[in-house]
Amino acid sequence: MSSSPLQIAVVVGSLRRDSYNRKLALALEKLAPAGSASFKHLDIGALPLYNQDDDANQAPAVKQMKADIAASAGVLFVTPEYNRSIPGVLKNALDNCSRPYGSSAWAGKPAGIIGTSPGAIGTALAQAHLRPILGYLDMPTLGQPEAFVQMKEGLIDADGNIGEGSRKFLQGWLDTYLNWVRKFSA
Amino acid sequence: MSSSPLQIAVVVGSLRRDSYNRKLALALEKLAPAGSASFKHLDIGALPLYNQDDDANQAPAVKQMKADIAASAGVLFVTPEYNRSIPGVLKNALDNCSRPYGSSAWAGKPAGIIGTSPGAIGTALAQAHLRPILGYLDMPTLGQPEAFVQMKEGLIDADGNIGEGSRKFLQGWLDTYLNWVRKFSA
Repeated sequence: MSSSPLQIAVVVGSLRRDSYNRKLALALEKLAPAGSASFKHLDIGALPLYNQDDDANQAPAVKQMKADIAASAGVLFVTPEYNRSIPGVLKNALDNCSRPYGSSAWAGKPAGIIGTSPGAIGTALAQAHLRPILGYLDMPTLGQPEAFVQMKEGLIDADGNIGEGSRKFLQGWLDTYLNWVRKFSA
Repeated sequence: MSSSPLQIAVVVGSLRRDSYNRKLALALEKLAPAGSASFKHLDIGALPLYNQDDDANQAPAVKQMKADIAASAGVLFVTPEYNRSIPGVLKNALDNCSRPYGSSAWAGKPAGIIGTSPGAIGTALAQAHLRPILGYLDMPTLGQPEAFVQMKEGLIDADGNIGEGSRKFLQGWLDTYLNWVRKFSA
């Protein structure tokens, strides 16, 4: 008996072209068993700065993103830490797609949080800010294992695969996350 | 003996035209004793979405805002709460003007935090997220009195003045904030 692939919306919190977190997201996706999941990256750099005056007439990029989230079984947040919190560009995406009041695209979508940075705390404080936001948005968010990933030589190899030293942990994280999403998409 | 007016950069966290927080900011400014301070609103809606790839070539709007912050004696944050945190547009302004690394415009500028919302907690959770960010940005931030302002009938009158019921508290808040800024601009 096989189950259909889960469609996962991926939100990378950085717009930088060579973003470590985008590399981590792409490497994680390769760990998904064949046929288990498909991943769609949301283009948060295409969104306008959120302005409540636009609620009745949201920009096409906002509507498209809300439709992509609605079509997904779960959301994977892969984000850096900026100034001890989440990037403004990530919060702007959360704000845009949560509106108008009563029409949030996020509600009920199971979420996973992971992030990497060169620093030792590996985005821990950004994640601590993101969790209560996702709670308010009514996104069931995977608790354990937490994943505070330090970007070091060898974390991701030249072919974009997770390196040997972290593969077991991150394989376990991804498997647990996909099981979490599946729990909510019966 | 008189001292020169303090130049205060005002950051309103909402782009909405009829923003409650902009109204609160303007009403607070009227409480400043004549000649004690001048207030300049920063246009956070003019900023690009922060992208680290632009650090070496920041947009004119970012450079202008950094210059305005540099010219100010202190910064006043007047912000709503969006999804139990600060608005993405506010964090985006903090991120843009904190970069490139080592050239943050915020460092050392004394800050005050205040906000209003129709809800009873009056932006308390947004402020709880903003404080550690300002700590990281090395902005000495006024601790007490805290100001979690519920936007109710009569808070601001038809002429844009603080209503009778809140005037004493908010006058005290503003006086304490201006004294806080003056302490750092000797």
